[in-house]
Amino acid sequence: MELVPGNTLITATPQEGRELAIAMARKTIGAIQPDADVRKKLRPDYANNADSLTHAGHVVAIEFATIAAANDYWRDRA
Amino acid sequence: MELVPGNTLITATPQEGRELAIAMARKTIGAIQPDADVRKKLRPDYANNADSLTHAGHVVAIEFATIAAANDYWRDRA
Amino acid sequence: MELVPGNTLITATPQEGRELAIAMARKTIGAIQPDADVRKKLRPDYANNADSLTHAGHVVAIEFATIAAANDYWRDRA
Amino acid sequence: MELVPGNTLITATPQEGRELAIAMARKTIGAIQPDADVRKKLRPDYANNADSLTHAGHVVAIEFATIAAANDYWRDRA
Amino acid sequence: MELVPGNTLITATPQEGRELAIAMARKTIGAIQPDADVRKKLRPDYANNADSLTHAGHVVAIEFATIAAANDYWRDRA
Amino acid sequence: MELVPGNTLITATPQEGRELAIAMARKTIGAIQPDADVRKKLRPDYANNADSLTHAGHVVAIEFATIAAANDYWRDRA
Repeated sequence: MELVPGNTLITATPQEGRELAIAMARKTIGAIQPDADVRKKLRPDYANNADSLTHAGHVVAIEFATIAAANDYWRDRA
Repeated sequence: MELVPGNTLITATPQEGRELAIAMARKTIGAIQPDADVRKKLRPDYANNADSLTHAGHVVAIEFATIAAANDYWRDRA
Repeated sequence: MELVPGNTLITATPQEGRELAIAMARKTIGAIQPDADVRKKLRPDYANNADSLTHAGHVVAIEFATIAAANDYWRDRA
Repeated sequence: MELVPGNTLITATPQEGRELAIAMARKTIGAIQPDADVRKKLRPDYANNADSLTHAGHVVAIEFATIAAANDYWRDRA
Repeated sequence: MELVPGNTLITATPQEGRELAIAMARKTIGAIQPDADVRKKLRPDYANNADSLTHAGHVVAIEFATIAAANDYWRDRA
Repeated sequence: MELVPGNTLITATPQEGRELAIAMARKTIGAIQPDADVRKKLRPDYANNADSLTHAGHVVAIEFATIAAANDYWRDRA
């Protein structure tokens, strides 16, 4: 199972880095719960719950911190 | 969908970095739950709950840590 | 709204850094829930709850990590 | 008990680093709860719960941050 | 109120660094809930609850990460 | 009370670093709740609860991040 799309942490822009962070967070869930039907059934549980969404955003923030460091914060673009 | 306003982590001041952290945290929620009506309906759930607000602040703190590092902590301004 | 008092992460001492961490954590909550009356009403919910206090302290610890790094851990004072 | 497969944090690719992160997270649980029957019995509790899966993904994100830093973010491959 | 005992993050040993981490975590709670009677009343709530203790240990781990970095991980002593 | 076994963060291998992370996490709990009988009584509460185990693993991941950095990720061994 592909866990890191493109198998690299390097992206051209912060936007792409953020998209990668979201994708990586999702793929981990897929690795822990490989049954797509179960995941689909669970989606409304968190997508309609404020605290669950905050926690999902929390995980994305942590993934992004790693990706941003990998890209030296895209400072060359600034 | 725009996930990083301005597509850069570089800001002029800590204040602007903090505003970016809040904006990034919010946009992630928008990416996970794209339905604005659902998000609007959920807002009172966390905006009137102490623990939910603390968790939201927690995510902002993590986003800000990344942005602060990207800006070398705005040390040149000190 | 002022999110970073003094608009700098640089402080003279760890004590002042810690005070800034607490202030920044609080101001984020103020940005997310701008209604002071609501915040005041919610205060007993977490100030009298052990787990809520622990989480509040958790956020302060994260804010402080960023501030401490910004100040190179105040090593020059040691 | 083996806690770090291969006893190294160095991997060839981000994908392998992510797999190591998942393995390390799981082995820690095995160290805290060594009874495989108990762990097996608990699995449905979190594998069918959205918030539990998010938290499991959260831990993987933290483990991966360490592994990614160890590998200098696999920048040489980019 | 004293938030960082000794007003420094520099300690002689990891053991002392860990003691400082615990002290800093506690003093933050004291800053957020200054009423010692309330804090005393809340203590059994978390001291007799496994999840509350884990979260308290979580905060100590974060404080210690900052202190350990400040002391360059006490590598000179190794 | 000994909080850091050996009073050093330096270990020979990642495996030993991971064991130290688990030990440090446990000793913190012992510092916060010094009564061994209470800790023993609480053990089933988290050892048989999936979410509690995940949180315990979360804390170990944070402790390990610090230890891994202290050991420069054991890169010399790779």
